Amino acid sequence: MNDVNPASQTIDLNSDVGEGFGRWSIADDNQIMPLISSANIACGFHAGDPVVMIATCSSAHRHGVRIGAHIGYRDLPGFGRRFIDYDPQDLRAETIYQIGAITAAAHSIGAEVTYVKPHGALYNRMAHDEDHAAAVIEGIQATNPSLALMVLSGTPVVDQALEAGLHVIREAFADRVYTPDGTLKSRKYPDAVHHDPELAADQALQLALGQPVLSSAGTPVSIDADSICVHGDNEAALAVVRQIHQLFQHHGIEVAHAH
Amino acid sequence: MNDVNPASQTIDLNSDVGEGFGRWSIADDNQIMPLISSANIACGFHAGDPVVMIATCSSAHRHGVRIGAHIGYRDLPGFGRRFIDYDPQDLRAETIYQIGAITAAAHSIGAEVTYVKPHGALYNRMAHDEDHAAAVIEGIQATNPSLALMVLSGTPVVDQALEAGLHVIREAFADRVYTPDGTLKSRKYPDAVHHDPELAADQALQLALGQPVLSSAGTPVSIDADSICVHGDNEAALAVVRQIHQLFQHHGIEVAHAH
Amino acid sequence: MNDVNPASQTIDLNSDVGEGFGRWSIADDNQIMPLISSANIACGFHAGDPVVMIATCSSAHRHGVRIGAHIGYRDLPGFGRRFIDYDPQDLRAETIYQIGAITAAAHSIGAEVTYVKPHGALYNRMAHDEDHAAAVIEGIQATNPSLALMVLSGTPVVDQALEAGLHVIREAFADRVYTPDGTLKSRKYPDAVHHDPELAADQALQLALGQPVLSSAGTPVSIDADSICVHGDNEAALAVVRQIHQLFQHHGIEVAHAH
Amino acid sequence: MNDVNPASQTIDLNSDVGEGFGRWSIADDNQIMPLISSANIACGFHAGDPVVMIATCSSAHRHGVRIGAHIGYRDLPGFGRRFIDYDPQDLRAETIYQIGAITAAAHSIGAEVTYVKPHGALYNRMAHDEDHAAAVIEGIQATNPSLALMVLSGTPVVDQALEAGLHVIREAFADRVYTPDGTLKSRKYPDAVHHDPELAADQALQLALGQPVLSSAGTPVSIDADSICVHGDNEAALAVVRQIHQLFQHHGIEVAHAH
Repeated sequence: MNDVNPASQTIDLNSDVGEGFGRWSIADDNQIMPLISSANIACGFHAGDPVVMIATCSSAHRHGVRIGAHIGYRDLPGFGRRFIDYDPQDLRAETIYQIGAITAAAHSIGAEVTYVKPHGALYNRMAHDEDHAAAVIEGIQATNPSLALMVLSGTPVVDQALEAGLHVIREAFADRVYTPDGTLKSRKYPDAVHHDPELAADQALQLALGQPVLSSAGTPVSIDADSICVHGDNEAALAVVRQIHQLFQHHGIEVAHAH
Repeated sequence: MNDVNPASQTIDLNSDVGEGFGRWSIADDNQIMPLISSANIACGFHAGDPVVMIATCSSAHRHGVRIGAHIGYRDLPGFGRRFIDYDPQDLRAETIYQIGAITAAAHSIGAEVTYVKPHGALYNRMAHDEDHAAAVIEGIQATNPSLALMVLSGTPVVDQALEAGLHVIREAFADRVYTPDGTLKSRKYPDAVHHDPELAADQALQLALGQPVLSSAGTPVSIDADSICVHGDNEAALAVVRQIHQLFQHHGIEVAHAH
Repeated sequence: MNDVNPASQTIDLNSDVGEGFGRWSIADDNQIMPLISSANIACGFHAGDPVVMIATCSSAHRHGVRIGAHIGYRDLPGFGRRFIDYDPQDLRAETIYQIGAITAAAHSIGAEVTYVKPHGALYNRMAHDEDHAAAVIEGIQATNPSLALMVLSGTPVVDQALEAGLHVIREAFADRVYTPDGTLKSRKYPDAVHHDPELAADQALQLALGQPVLSSAGTPVSIDADSICVHGDNEAALAVVRQIHQLFQHHGIEVAHAH
Repeated sequence: MNDVNPASQTIDLNSDVGEGFGRWSIADDNQIMPLISSANIACGFHAGDPVVMIATCSSAHRHGVRIGAHIGYRDLPGFGRRFIDYDPQDLRAETIYQIGAITAAAHSIGAEVTYVKPHGALYNRMAHDEDHAAAVIEGIQATNPSLALMVLSGTPVVDQALEAGLHVIREAFADRVYTPDGTLKSRKYPDAVHHDPELAADQALQLALGQPVLSSAGTPVSIDADSICVHGDNEAALAVVRQIHQLFQHHGIEVAHAH
């Protein structure tokens, strides 16, 4: 039921892409595509328009990168980063709508969508809000129950999705500091993020090898990681991903998604 | 390749439904559903939201009515009734997006989308604009080439779609006056519409029987009609549809879509 | 600094109007306009488009009804009824934007906007969220500090706005049941609303006369009411307003806003 | 009635700014602001959101740059560059709405809007479509008749606006090739744009001095220019503007708007 393979020498790297809209863009996704194995493609509700979606599916497909539906709250002005107090029925319906749209975009270039990753505020909310999580889970099941759901490792939604029968991809972060109990340290604290690329790459390696990472309290903490989130929207972020690749190569770890 | 069956005693009646958005609605679609065989369901770009789309698919499915993707220009404020000078690439991509969304909505309640009907200004434009028509046709082919395309009978897009290999549903109107050459009389003229329900019902009967209708010049004109468009957004419109049903029953014509 | 005038034989009645968008409408506002003295006109973010806004300003002006900016979260699909976790800077800026837009709409027909009433989820949030309230208050002050702010009587935002130097209109409800401490009984309870029009009209009378109303505990509770909210979007609601008018006439109370 | 002053040694340079939306941006407007005297600030319909609008008004104000309402079709996905077949009543109302919104944004930082420049497809349409031009002109008059209207020099809308009593700013282009009759050569032709910065700077100088420019036929053609449009959304464009400034300095021409 689950992507994890502790003995594996492969690890999935995922990144948010296709975040343009009309004349606007965030990043040249061609930089990050060769470095990842999973592409979270925006579906038009927080970013992405039909032309961008198709072009991004095409780019991912050319690079052998699997395509995920990066669904979000309907909030272009807020880029899906603001919590919206959705009626679960609306959230379920919008999940269906967005998955349908990106599925057709992928089909149009001969590819398939294989997983769903909620975006921004929806991702954060689902981790602990059972009703919002259930709405998304039901939306997936009503559309294509073979789609995996990528959510934050160590949060209640992991078990909720597994119990519902979904395939789950547990996500971890290379550059985020974990608390001793395995949750992400809040961004309210200045030391919530590894700004040193070497620290981030080291943590990525530990996550990939299934080894504990160093928590904010200095204690080791184990994080189940089926996929590691990386960023490609600026040169510094890309440099971190390249450093991760070098370190992975040195340790014989292949960047690839599970099947 | 074509729906028409001159000897048939069945005719398809189609109507625009699912035209609400959020708190707003146009009509109670439950009135028209039992009277039609094809439901043109708005896909969110000119009207319709994911909740409305799913509910309308469900209502159509319960009534045995086939589901059509009523795609439109991205123009909620203009209800898709204003021509927008689209780049064909955008129009193609938005066709794919909308078909994908309504397909998932239909799947979520166990139904299928079987045809595409362009809405409003897009419908009018496609009839004679080869580039816009090609964009929609290519969008259908890239998504699901088994979908039929419902367009205005007697216009160039009919042959363009047939030549592209699409199944075509030629649409005619019960309440619109035809010119001697088989096109619709422009709404700029006061006598462009049959306001008398009996005249509309008579024309529907002639269309269903494959008989010529009376043109604006008083001459007979033959219209190939695989489907007749009716309206259900007010009591007067519903009365016309009921009158059509009575007349059809009297003449042994069944309201049903082709297979 | 405050509208209230305990000895007055006038009371303000306000209602939400101009809630259409494009082809959609909620109500025929011509029914409620003759019955109110304050019109809360949607500004395009949760409802209302520029044409509707101008037409509604014009209707209000013809009826001698003062015009309020009914500002809301930017959420047409949710009709502004869903809490959105705004950055206060965004909320302040959108307050300025919406007030500017409705001010121009009013000017275009020779009228003025004189107050601001937050809508739906924003109204509820502002009552107790100091940051959201401050954002709206600052937005008003930056645009037109002479505008009054209409908020829920008995909530912290009343004092917050007064301390900021704004003119405040304290709003009460004819059809909502009050708790013994003067807050609205939550709509989660079945007895939160006076469904009996006579009870609603009686409560309106007590509010207008400055007399205590009967709380949910059966005890009297005093509510400072500068304006009473009424609804005009269906026949039953209009009947209540007409009943209120009859009762007011009998007691010599005039429906009019303070100056 | 008109900005032009043939003997003047000053010329206005205008540029489109404030074209971000939410998380997206087009350019860092701080680069172009010191180089221009008029800022066309997007009003939220084709680009711009309330936060961006206020920040851009503030930046323009700090640099002593006058603020123009850069109104556009309601088309974020198309960036206002697609013709939309508006009902003139809608266009008039949206003109009022957008001017009101940017006026409030400017007021909030202590500045004033002094002119209106239509954007993109609306700009092009207004040049020759009398009904669309009338809708915008009436919208300006209904909101603030002291606002000037910036339109393409040499097109019918110049006289239409003057006859309606508006102050007109006739705009010319440094980098566009003119036909012998003083209209812009269509962008369909490869030689429609001066790609050589020196040619563009020379043409700017001729426009500023009131001298004829060289038409596409090699003949001199006179263009009445109250303002010259420049671009600041990439380094090459900024380099052209800096070259124009150098040349202007050499010839004693000051970049400033008329009063």
